[in-house]
Amino acid sequence: MGLAKDELEMAEPSDRSTDGGNRGRDDPDSAAKEEEEKRSGEDVGGGGGNPSVERIFEGLEVPPWRRQLTGRAFVVSFAVSVMFAFIVMKLNLTVGIIPSLNVSAGLLGFFFIKTWTKVLNRSGLLQAVPFTRQENTVIQTCVVASSGIAFSGGFGSYLFAMNERVANQSTDKQGALDFKNPSLPWMIGFLFVVSFLGLFAVVPLRKIMIIDFKLTYPSGTATAYLINSFHTPEGAKLAKKQVKALGKFFSFSFLWGFFQWFYTAGDNCGFTEFPTLGLKALQYRFYFDFSATYVGVGMICPYIINISVLLGGILSWGLMWPLIETRKGNWYPAEESPTSMHGLQGYKVFIAVAMILGDGLYNFLKVLSRTLSGLYHQLRDRQTRNVLPIANDSSPENPQVSYDDQRRTQLFLKDQIPTWFAIAGYVTIAAISTATLPHMFHQLKWYYILVIYLFAPILGFCNAYGCGLTDWSLASNYGKLAIFVIGAWAGSSHGGILAGLAACGVMMNIVSTASDLTQDFKTGYLTLASPRSMFVSQVIGTAMGCIISPCVFWLFYKAFKDLGLPGSEYPVPFGIIYRSMAELGVEGFSSLPRHCLTLCYGFFAAAMIINGFRDSVGKKWARFIPLPMAMAIPFYIGPYFAIDMCVGSLILFIWEKTNKAKADAFGPAVASGLICGDGIWTLPSSILALVGVHPPICMKFLSRAMNSRVDAFLGS
Amino acid sequence: MGLAKDELEMAEPSDRSTDGGNRGRDDPDSAAKEEEEKRSGEDVGGGGGNPSVERIFEGLEVPPWRRQLTGRAFVVSFAVSVMFAFIVMKLNLTVGIIPSLNVSAGLLGFFFIKTWTKVLNRSGLLQAVPFTRQENTVIQTCVVASSGIAFSGGFGSYLFAMNERVANQSTDKQGALDFKNPSLPWMIGFLFVVSFLGLFAVVPLRKIMIIDFKLTYPSGTATAYLINSFHTPEGAKLAKKQVKALGKFFSFSFLWGFFQWFYTAGDNCGFTEFPTLGLKALQYRFYFDFSATYVGVGMICPYIINISVLLGGILSWGLMWPLIETRKGNWYPAEESPTSMHGLQGYKVFIAVAMILGDGLYNFLKVLSRTLSGLYHQLRDRQTRNVLPIANDSSPENPQVSYDDQRRTQLFLKDQIPTWFAIAGYVTIAAISTATLPHMFHQLKWYYILVIYLFAPILGFCNAYGCGLTDWSLASNYGKLAIFVIGAWAGSSHGGILAGLAACGVMMNIVSTASDLTQDFKTGYLTLASPRSMFVSQVIGTAMGCIISPCVFWLFYKAFKDLGLPGSEYPVPFGIIYRSMAELGVEGFSSLPRHCLTLCYGFFAAAMIINGFRDSVGKKWARFIPLPMAMAIPFYIGPYFAIDMCVGSLILFIWEKTNKAKADAFGPAVASGLICGDGIWTLPSSILALVGVHPPICMKFLSRAMNSRVDAFLGS
Repeated sequence: MGLAKDELEMAEPSDRSTDGGNRGRDDPDSAAKEEEEKRSGEDVGGGGGNPSVERIFEGLEVPPWRRQLTGRAFVVSFAVSVMFAFIVMKLNLTVGIIPSLNVSAGLLGFFFIKTWTKVLNRSGLLQAVPFTRQENTVIQTCVVASSGIAFSGGFGSYLFAMNERVANQSTDKQGALDFKNPSLPWMIGFLFVVSFLGLFAVVPLRKIMIIDFKLTYPSGTATAYLINSFHTPEGAKLAKKQVKALGKFFSFSFLWGFFQWFYTAGDNCGFTEFPTLGLKALQYRFYFDFSATYVGVGMICPYIINISVLLGGILSWGLMWPLIETRKGNWYPAEESPTSMHGLQGYKVFIAVAMILGDGLYNFLKVLSRTLSGLYHQLRDRQTRNVLPIANDSSPENPQVSYDDQRRTQLFLKDQIPTWFAIAGYVTIAAISTATLPHMFHQLKWYYILVIYLFAPILGFCNAYGCGLTDWSLASNYGKLAIFVIGAWAGSSHGGILAGLAACGVMMNIVSTASDLTQDFKTGYLTLASPRSMFVSQVIGTAMGCIISPCVFWLFYKAFKDLGLPGSEYPVPFGIIYRSMAELGVEGFSSLPRHCLTLCYGFFAAAMIINGFRDSVGKKWARFIPLPMAMAIPFYIGPYFAIDMCVGSLILFIWEKTNKAKADAFGPAVASGLICGDGIWTLPSSILALVGVHPPICMKFLSRAMNSRVDAFLGS
Repeated sequence: MGLAKDELEMAEPSDRSTDGGNRGRDDPDSAAKEEEEKRSGEDVGGGGGNPSVERIFEGLEVPPWRRQLTGRAFVVSFAVSVMFAFIVMKLNLTVGIIPSLNVSAGLLGFFFIKTWTKVLNRSGLLQAVPFTRQENTVIQTCVVASSGIAFSGGFGSYLFAMNERVANQSTDKQGALDFKNPSLPWMIGFLFVVSFLGLFAVVPLRKIMIIDFKLTYPSGTATAYLINSFHTPEGAKLAKKQVKALGKFFSFSFLWGFFQWFYTAGDNCGFTEFPTLGLKALQYRFYFDFSATYVGVGMICPYIINISVLLGGILSWGLMWPLIETRKGNWYPAEESPTSMHGLQGYKVFIAVAMILGDGLYNFLKVLSRTLSGLYHQLRDRQTRNVLPIANDSSPENPQVSYDDQRRTQLFLKDQIPTWFAIAGYVTIAAISTATLPHMFHQLKWYYILVIYLFAPILGFCNAYGCGLTDWSLASNYGKLAIFVIGAWAGSSHGGILAGLAACGVMMNIVSTASDLTQDFKTGYLTLASPRSMFVSQVIGTAMGCIISPCVFWLFYKAFKDLGLPGSEYPVPFGIIYRSMAELGVEGFSSLPRHCLTLCYGFFAAAMIINGFRDSVGKKWARFIPLPMAMAIPFYIGPYFAIDMCVGSLILFIWEKTNKAKADAFGPAVASGLICGDGIWTLPSSILALVGVHPPICMKFLSRAMNSRVDAFLGS
């Protein structure tokens, strides 16, 4: 599953439970233990405690790979992909935190196909082919590939950072000239030429990762576990109940979104401006904004994430910004507009950037060192003995190959994808890409791209390997690396900002799809899906994503005119952050407001120290130490979504206290329902905006004094 | 219990379940069956199916009557009375529908004393006296007597109708001069001289009603059932759980009221103006106003009441008023102010009055005929045999006296109240009253009062008897009779309006307390409480009520400046309705707007026909026929509270569908919590208003066009 890894470095592996946020969230120790169990259990079952999963499924025939790729699977995938594209896009454009949607994807795929077969069978027209877990894996893979593009396409980050609106908020007037406004043709073209490379890059390595190294891939394993359990009779029953809960909260959340819409005529109207904590608090963006999405996100994210975000919000908007504001006219010019990077906005953006970079660098080094040491051990072990070893030091060695492993390995190796095919594919696409990209971005020279493509397979391998070990994709960190390297190479005068951002896109897409596909191969391995069908599904999914995502983005972009402006409904926080990083890389720190650089150094260091501290104190205490990455997000956009997320946390916490079993079983379904319903409401809402249907009422909040003025005005 | 009967003829006996709204609400047939069971079961148990309740309590000593009157009982009674005074007053002043608060009174009394004894025992200072069911009955009686005054004091009806604000909305300019503004001294004095008469009037009759006639008194019986069950170990456990549920929803409702308050700076601000169904619907008062009180009231009231209110609202504000509005300038002058009785307001008020009178007359005649025929049978039976017969024809005769009956009768007859004491008391108070009342109301001559006091005992007996048969107090109907009779006698030129209204108060207080006390005697009979302690408790409760109720009213009156104005938060609907009745009685129909009289005749007749139809079709179909009385209420104040009540109904309906047992056990507790929490919030809210603390924010709802105007104004 790809989405889980794609979220903006939101969670560390120790904070993320291994089965899609499904359990053990209030107790990292137990989560870790579970993970441990799964790692060792995987060799014998991978299906949660049963001595052998494949014995249960023994009687069922595994369809050949072509029959795993059914038409209905792709129809369902398409529908779910569109839905997820809306959700991911909305999250991209609002706060940039994207929770793991694995569980919803699994549930919805299962639900749609079950309904499909039931309707077909009932209609009596033709007997529907039975729904196999391989087919389910194909849907899962396709949806993940497609909605992965909604994230790695950079609509909320690098691609949006090229936009004129973002450029105009820039500090540097010359750099502000470097912009490229989005338009449907070039976005689709760009995605098509860069998104398929990762697939080919990683295909030759799949056997090494899955069979030889036996990497964990916690998300992939968890997804496989989910799919396997759905297709046993017991699991199907629970799944149906979960789908029902999801459906109920989906409807509620959709209707709630619809209801809210009526009261949003004009700016500063509606529930999203509700001064739940008072008008003064609203001014500093402390309020509950009644968003079902973030309440749902809060229910899925580990508690520590929610607490971190809230802490970051209190630190920045509750303490630092009000204090810095008192220095107005001293630290920064008093007459600067609120969106200017020379004013308070500069502090907000650059301190957030510093924290994100500090956190990113720390984790980059950490995962890289683990990757290298892991590889070193693998290769050394390989030389010393001929039995296939297990990569993970912590899991017990199991030289005796189990029935499950035998059967899985056999089927995994049955359908080969020839290496020549992979290499030919990579070279062809790289050549096309190198030839066409400079025409899209004049600032991006062909030799930059060539260099990226030479290094990309290695980085892709690193990322896939690290992800297999830690469940953590570093795609956006590699992207940031590209921004700085290519940006500095091109230089400010030759449009280094745009070159850097475009290079970031090229890099992120390769690296991200590489880890996605390997993750999927793991899922396929555990559900006996053929690597070929996985590959085809991923190709089709990627192609879908390359078309769906830009279209969905385009709908948002056209429908909401203030998209990307600070303080609006869709502030696109990472747009300005990526742009600022690019400027920083190209032009240095010259244009920052006073004391900002000092603060940045401090927060950069603090991010690394906090992370180091988290890793050194052990799991028992680490869960009480906030994550710098999560703390940085509200620095720019404000703490309101943190309050929503904490409400979600609180709901889950109370639920777990009163009925733990039920909360564990239905919590993710309820949360998914809340997220999906609200996410889907943005489809009709943006269509309404496009066709010019405006909400009829404004729910306005006025202070007492203001209200009497308005009343006097209206009365006269 | 008094409150249940006091509500404004809201429910027919067949629609009201017999245990305080606690069960059988969705199925009048089963409710009727239950009632039947109770009527017959009462002779053997009165405690719900057990062969003998008194056998269970046999080991427990019944304390002598003086020890039933404990200090703590009156402290608790006082606290609960204050709380209920707020709730009843709020309901009086907003919509005039007062649901049965029996269950909450029972629960709260039990809860407070239990806490009290627990705290005392735990502190170790002194051993608390055990809490007996007799003491519980004393609290119940005292609270009911006290909060009964909040209703029969007429703060929402005849007393408020004397107010200048109401008089100014009058059609007749001369009549408008007859007013008497409320002030604390005369209100307390008035209540003291009129409220105690009923107590003495009915004391001599208690043996006839309870022992000889064995009248049912469904509410009184239900209360006794509740109290008995609380004091058995099983009952205490459930009661504790119910109290917990009540407490939870009490806090929620209180906090919700508090939260709402912040957004009500200025008129037309806050949740009470939320255009949930759109601005156009809001204009015609169709909206959900987020009031926890009415949602709770809706949960307690039978479904048919809620449906009737909604139907009435749709008929009037959805259909008739918009249609009549199109006749503006034709049927009534276009330039009339919206509060003028010559305009649309006249139709609203007088059609409502017509329906209420039609309904009242029908039921008056019905209950009177049942009373007379019941009395006739009683007396005839008495002559033919010496065994005490059972009044109710439907219940089987039970000549063999059970253990329960023996024990109850024995204790009931042990503590006598001498008849000479009752008569002396009545005459003394009547004399004082006759002497003092003309000084308060110059229009009310002493001979009017004398006539009322001559007839009052007979009417009081009738009402107590009818209430025993049907659980329905006709107090306000006798009051209306007094308005018309005394008003016509005094005549327009001699201040007939004020004389009528004052006479209404005198009459209502006597008649209402008479039925209350008899009801309480029944409860005492079934819980072995002494008649003497009941009488003392009622006297103390009435005295409390005479002081608490005017003070609470005064708080509302001083705190909310637009109290009594149409469309405000506290429209006091029955104020204008009672005033209009008085005017109608004194001056005739001359001043009504065009076609209004025709419509009034129509609705008067319709009310009687619908009632007749309800009674003739049988219980199975009667539950689908709306109640004209309930339909009339929204005619004047609008259907918004009907929507709230229907939401309450809907919640209960869904709850009953999903978990009937739980809904039955906890529904009334949840509803009481919602009502009490919101009711109590009005205490701090009115204090805040008095000391000049105003809410800080206005939540305003503007149409799209209006909003752009306001934005332009604020921007400039």
